[in-house]
Amino acid sequence: MLPDDGFHALDRQECLRLLAKVPVGRVVYTRQALHAILPVNFGLDTDSSVILRTSASSHLVRAIDGAVVAFETDDFDAEERSGWSVVVTGRAAVVTDPAEHERLSRTGLRSWVDVQDGVFVRIESEMVTGRVVNGAGSADRRI
Amino acid sequence: MLPDDGFHALDRQECLRLLAKVPVGRVVYTRQALHAILPVNFGLDTDSSVILRTSASSHLVRAIDGAVVAFETDDFDAEERSGWSVVVTGRAAVVTDPAEHERLSRTGLRSWVDVQDGVFVRIESEMVTGRVVNGAGSADRRI
Repeated sequence: MLPDDGFHALDRQECLRLLAKVPVGRVVYTRQALHAILPVNFGLDTDSSVILRTSASSHLVRAIDGAVVAFETDDFDAEERSGWSVVVTGRAAVVTDPAEHERLSRTGLRSWVDVQDGVFVRIESEMVTGRVVNGAGSADRRI
Repeated sequence: MLPDDGFHALDRQECLRLLAKVPVGRVVYTRQALHAILPVNFGLDTDSSVILRTSASSHLVRAIDGAVVAFETDDFDAEERSGWSVVVTGRAAVVTDPAEHERLSRTGLRSWVDVQDGVFVRIESEMVTGRVVNGAGSADRRI
């Protein structure tokens, strides 16, 4: 519980359970010295790292290969004013090992868009944080 | 159109139109030298700046007041493999002018959670970018 914002913190296992429920997350990284954020579909590997599949020549790969990034997922119900968010923070790296690439290929993870030079990018789940808000019934509360 | 990732770019007016359609976005900023991302509900001011309402003593306010941040919204349909995302990049600042605070109070923007020392934070829409993906029919394409 964070006293200054009214949200409840989730533990790592709860975060990973929620992370597995949604198909899209957002990679947060630095591009030209500015914050950048890009939605992507993703999978979770057996070690709970986040796996993306994208073009080897994409801006994203050039920006994040070898860098520490954040990866966020969430799900909110605006009517209920409730929901959750999970953030994974860790090093991102293109999967270069052929055996590992082949293993990940068998998971069936595919990009939503059509690119030719596909690679897998792994984001290590070095730090996993999450929080829930349940604002139901708070409609009359200012702020 | 970005040739390396198959998405279509949106112009500023299209981005602002989409931004007005969703209640929740994500503030991207730096916290303890790491990327941080926090979902928040928001409103749009008449000058298209993004308005948040939160606690004056929150971690978020301490981290972003006076800093350049990104603010992202999106909406995706996983079945159709389609959707859009919009990112506003600009300086964030707590609204300190009493008349401006009063004006924004009349817009009815409220936080989803209950905090006492509410302030408005304005994120200037200095740079507005967006993109759409329509992956329908691409189910057989490997990334």
